[in-house]
Amino acid sequence: MESITIIKIGGNILDSKESLNSFMDLFARFEGKKILVHGGGKAATKQAEKLGVPVKMVDGRRITDEATIDIVVQVFAGLLNKGLVAELQSRECNALGLTGADLNMIPAWKREHPSIDFGFVGDFTPESINATLLKELVALDVVPVFCALTHDGKGNLLNTNADTIASGLAIALSPFFSTSLYYCFEKEGVLSDSNNDATVIEKLDFDLYQNLKENHIIHDGMIPKLDNAFQALQQGVNTIKIGHALNLLAFNGTQLYL
Amino acid sequence: MESITIIKIGGNILDSKESLNSFMDLFARFEGKKILVHGGGKAATKQAEKLGVPVKMVDGRRITDEATIDIVVQVFAGLLNKGLVAELQSRECNALGLTGADLNMIPAWKREHPSIDFGFVGDFTPESINATLLKELVALDVVPVFCALTHDGKGNLLNTNADTIASGLAIALSPFFSTSLYYCFEKEGVLSDSNNDATVIEKLDFDLYQNLKENHIIHDGMIPKLDNAFQALQQGVNTIKIGHALNLLAFNGTQLYL
Repeated sequence: MESITIIKIGGNILDSKESLNSFMDLFARFEGKKILVHGGGKAATKQAEKLGVPVKMVDGRRITDEATIDIVVQVFAGLLNKGLVAELQSRECNALGLTGADLNMIPAWKREHPSIDFGFVGDFTPESINATLLKELVALDVVPVFCALTHDGKGNLLNTNADTIASGLAIALSPFFSTSLYYCFEKEGVLSDSNNDATVIEKLDFDLYQNLKENHIIHDGMIPKLDNAFQALQQGVNTIKIGHALNLLAFNGTQLYL
Repeated sequence: MESITIIKIGGNILDSKESLNSFMDLFARFEGKKILVHGGGKAATKQAEKLGVPVKMVDGRRITDEATIDIVVQVFAGLLNKGLVAELQSRECNALGLTGADLNMIPAWKREHPSIDFGFVGDFTPESINATLLKELVALDVVPVFCALTHDGKGNLLNTNADTIASGLAIALSPFFSTSLYYCFEKEGVLSDSNNDATVIEKLDFDLYQNLKENHIIHDGMIPKLDNAFQALQQGVNTIKIGHALNLLAFNGTQLYL
């Protein structure tokens, strides 16, 4: 079975021109079939500030109203996505920038919640991803570059978590490829002491994860990321690693096991 | 030989939500292989005003500096292009939004001029368009939607005239398809009296065009559009028509002949 690697880069890498350039050098040289998924970083927040669009929060959660989704689309699908595509093309990497609306790649629905209207936020199931057409693109040696947008099939683009898009793509491609999913960020891996980069947990299985979570050693933003990742392992993704973006060519960090 | 139609929509159609919706209904129903090319309309100018980025002119010509190309990318490749893609997907049309950087579709170079630095403005030759890969996409029943951006292969996106992109694509596809090129705008065609929509010139050959140009009956913005279009006819495009966007399904207006 052919292999493919889905590589997610986090916001902090996107926010620094220097680290982003270094990452793109590595990504372009990364061998084999590959897909890039990127988040938005602070660029959307900065753009909202410049345009005077206030951040709306309900119960501590961010709401994507009409003005905000326009900004997210400008920044994610425009500036960031096409900037990455142009840079990758300059490195002989045949990138194609995509939202989940392009080619109906990721059909989604507006998030439903009994009391909070999140606005233009999308949820999806990996089963509905257009894996057949994605496979055709990859067979043409195209390198898809996904930003964190899906669509509802009614003409609306929807803000969607980039980690979830990365794991969804990996799950959807698992029947056709041996799939690896790399979460690249600015840390060396999952740490047992978040202030000490030398405390990388190299092998993290589900029992250990539960234990570390209960003891508050793993907390905050890592929990949804890891919950998501363990689900992807259960749904057929072969290898999942979490580590520093600039280690991409000899990716170590933390590997997950069931 | 299979047929393909390259359809360019102008700014005025994009600027009105109502006419854009009507146009998209027609475009989605348009039969056969097709490609959409769109300009930017007033949206980029509006965004520049909102962000306080001044319009720079040298010798009466607009300059695309670094702040301006960022706005053009946000608006053309983000808001407009992905908005069109999501709307077309809602009409069962399998749209794929593209810049000339995606898939290295339209390699270009920064415009060179002995005295004016136009900034991030791109020129290209139809021969360098990646027609092979475009053909592969079209064979997958994908409907490419191009915005008015190319790239220089050095990581820079370049603002490029949408009429030229449309004719360049038509020329590049001519060896493989019987190509039609439709310029859709808010007039009924090329008019012999620009204030009277009833004066459409139905058949415009090159001699008549030269004559009308010399007599100032055709003037202003129509001249580069028509020069461009006649060149495309000379370079193998089979049919070129200019007419009202909302007549797309029975496109009449003006047809060009050599």
